[in-house]
Amino acid sequence: MDALRVGIAGLGTVGAEVVRVIERQERTLAARCGRPVRVVAVTARSKAKKRGLDLRGIKWAKNPLAIATDPEVDCFVELIGGVDEPAGPAIEAALAAGKSVVTANKALIAKHGLKLAALAEKHGVALNYEAAVGAAIPVIKTLREGLAGTDIDRIYGILNGTCNYILTRMEQEGLSFDECLKDAQRLGYAEANPAFDVDGHDTAQKLSILASLAFGTKVAQSAVYVEGITSITPEDLRAAADLGYRLKLLGVAVRTPQGIEQRVHPTMVPRSSSIAQVMGVTNAVTIDGDGIPPITLVGAGAGAAATASAVVADIADVARGIRAEPFGRPVAKLAAISKAPMQRHEGGYYLRLMARDHAGTAATIATRLAEQDISIESIVQRQPDRAADGNGKPVKSAPVPVILITYATSEDAVRRALQAVQRDKVISGRPQVIRIEKN
Amino acid sequence: MDALRVGIAGLGTVGAEVVRVIERQERTLAARCGRPVRVVAVTARSKAKKRGLDLRGIKWAKNPLAIATDPEVDCFVELIGGVDEPAGPAIEAALAAGKSVVTANKALIAKHGLKLAALAEKHGVALNYEAAVGAAIPVIKTLREGLAGTDIDRIYGILNGTCNYILTRMEQEGLSFDECLKDAQRLGYAEANPAFDVDGHDTAQKLSILASLAFGTKVAQSAVYVEGITSITPEDLRAAADLGYRLKLLGVAVRTPQGIEQRVHPTMVPRSSSIAQVMGVTNAVTIDGDGIPPITLVGAGAGAAATASAVVADIADVARGIRAEPFGRPVAKLAAISKAPMQRHEGGYYLRLMARDHAGTAATIATRLAEQDISIESIVQRQPDRAADGNGKPVKSAPVPVILITYATSEDAVRRALQAVQRDKVISGRPQVIRIEKN
Repeated sequence: MDALRVGIAGLGTVGAEVVRVIERQERTLAARCGRPVRVVAVTARSKAKKRGLDLRGIKWAKNPLAIATDPEVDCFVELIGGVDEPAGPAIEAALAAGKSVVTANKALIAKHGLKLAALAEKHGVALNYEAAVGAAIPVIKTLREGLAGTDIDRIYGILNGTCNYILTRMEQEGLSFDECLKDAQRLGYAEANPAFDVDGHDTAQKLSILASLAFGTKVAQSAVYVEGITSITPEDLRAAADLGYRLKLLGVAVRTPQGIEQRVHPTMVPRSSSIAQVMGVTNAVTIDGDGIPPITLVGAGAGAAATASAVVADIADVARGIRAEPFGRPVAKLAAISKAPMQRHEGGYYLRLMARDHAGTAATIATRLAEQDISIESIVQRQPDRAADGNGKPVKSAPVPVILITYATSEDAVRRALQAVQRDKVISGRPQVIRIEKN
Repeated sequence: MDALRVGIAGLGTVGAEVVRVIERQERTLAARCGRPVRVVAVTARSKAKKRGLDLRGIKWAKNPLAIATDPEVDCFVELIGGVDEPAGPAIEAALAAGKSVVTANKALIAKHGLKLAALAEKHGVALNYEAAVGAAIPVIKTLREGLAGTDIDRIYGILNGTCNYILTRMEQEGLSFDECLKDAQRLGYAEANPAFDVDGHDTAQKLSILASLAFGTKVAQSAVYVEGITSITPEDLRAAADLGYRLKLLGVAVRTPQGIEQRVHPTMVPRSSSIAQVMGVTNAVTIDGDGIPPITLVGAGAGAAATASAVVADIADVARGIRAEPFGRPVAKLAAISKAPMQRHEGGYYLRLMARDHAGTAATIATRLAEQDISIESIVQRQPDRAADGNGKPVKSAPVPVILITYATSEDAVRRALQAVQRDKVISGRPQVIRIEKN
């Protein structure tokens, strides 16, 4: 059978690694795919840049669009990044020209995925993006093909390595968020402008893609409720450990009686759960299928080699003629999705309040929660290190943290109870409210 | 597009669940596959048996072969079990008739997989068996398609829920192997004849399939070195915990300079590894790809719903026209594999010896290990509960366990050192030798 002729736009660390892997795995790929896979054209911003690649015999195209429309290219691989020019139009052109497309671009799939999927469908070609979520963790393939016959109730995961790295360091070393962020930036795990990661937007983009595949809904990042990790303190991580939980930034999409709820927020997970074991930059996704025990997929969520592994597997699927609709079913059959009204969210809560007077405050808080029919699973009044004098006795004026775990209740009830507590003027500052996700 | 017409042989718990899922998921499957999926024929040993299934409108075939050769069936689903008559010949007949086949039969794939794969290849049809290993955990698809471009260095996993259940109970409750086995039998987690599970043969069958997919070698159960868990004591599990390990029955296939080593044995794994967190009947597989961080897949390894989920996904792939070679590449390209000579195995070891005289024995053992150039990471002389008199003083005559962890060495060296120790007559009974697998 004829070789699959691959054109690659973008030769950053991932693009260069894809070229290397296809070269190194030449025989394996040919055996697996039943035909050779060959890189025939590439392009990047700078042709002169040293990449340690032997590009002899490979055409250098003047721009991504030239590869996308090159009649000698069968499969267009987009590794440029960015949601609009030049990545978006090049992918559109390639699909319109009847070429299958492979991309690692989560932002583009989250924003323009539906339009591109419709185009892929129309032309009967593949649009593969395994690397866009969780790099080499085969979560897209698992949702799109591996669980094709399973009703999914919930999917949740650690989808951002930067945040998990920061939370891991904070927990293990008792450091502040700011200290860990600085370290993460120094080590290259966080961007100079970290907001996209630490505010939860990266997780939200990935979650919106997974939710579409899991529930047959339209990809809609705007329908995701998002909270980041900047308000998390070492105190919260310590308290989590004491209470049998671990704190993770989760993306959660869940089927509720009100519809599909998509949310990203710091989350207490039971310490014994698979997801709680995932430390550092590692990513993980847990899928709860109807009637079947959870399936958890764990691995690196980033890195050139892991990302290239997924890109090459996507190319191999094209070479083999393996093709599923980009979102698992035709775009026309994807249901609309609206933003989850979080006040109707139901679940357990971790609450940390700074009590002004540590004698009566716990009782006041308990009363206010009881008024909203909220049952308390545990309540701990902690003695912070700084609130003690030289003899270890508490300093009367320093606020003392009161930490509560509630049984399942509604977010609305929690908000009302906390407003009442604030009106009572027994706490200082803003209460810390962290949702609990049971496994 | 025309419906995919499915014929199912075997209506046990899995078969019945597959019929139910295809019925319940009718619309989702049609959307995902672009065509309806319809059960048109079934058969089972007893037609009269109550199964709670509505089989109106479905043909009852007189035997599996009749379904396999029925021109009105496109996809033959074998859920009978057993390696020969009637499952094997029926699958052959179906493939020869140009029908795609889906099976959950690991024993059959391990024994006749190559012959069947060659037949599937010849007729250009699919032979899908995701449910054969790890039920709904998508490990077959991940190896066959998801990592098509990745060189795999090692794959290892907990592939038998019965063994993991027994080891978990032994560890958590300090019970003996026999006590836990009885409980597992009572709860339906172990067969009346448990040898196939607890002696490691079930794990070996599954491992031989995974190794073929991972390394492009021929499936060969006979090439797997196998040790079961019957000699494991609560003492070993306690010592593992003390030393930072957990004891699991692992199947391991690894690329070594001598070739692919396939082995099943009780294994010490670092307590912090993903695989160590897997408790009870849960299964897990970790894949180490060249240059990429490990990928771990966790989920139920058995159960009607989990198994049916994988079977239906395999059927959906057939409906969609997704097809890869059964073992990832043509049978003719699979390399021969020979049994790993375990004396050449290299790694760390856990050794437990019963010292007759607890004064000088540790020193004698250490000397014998040093003679074989084996470095000791830690050595612990334990005081067993029963070896003390009423005042807590050790009873002189009772043997005392000496536990050692070695750095990486060869199995040969360990065997020689232990033979020397036995000649010294300082220990009683047989030494316990457990391999360590690093993550």
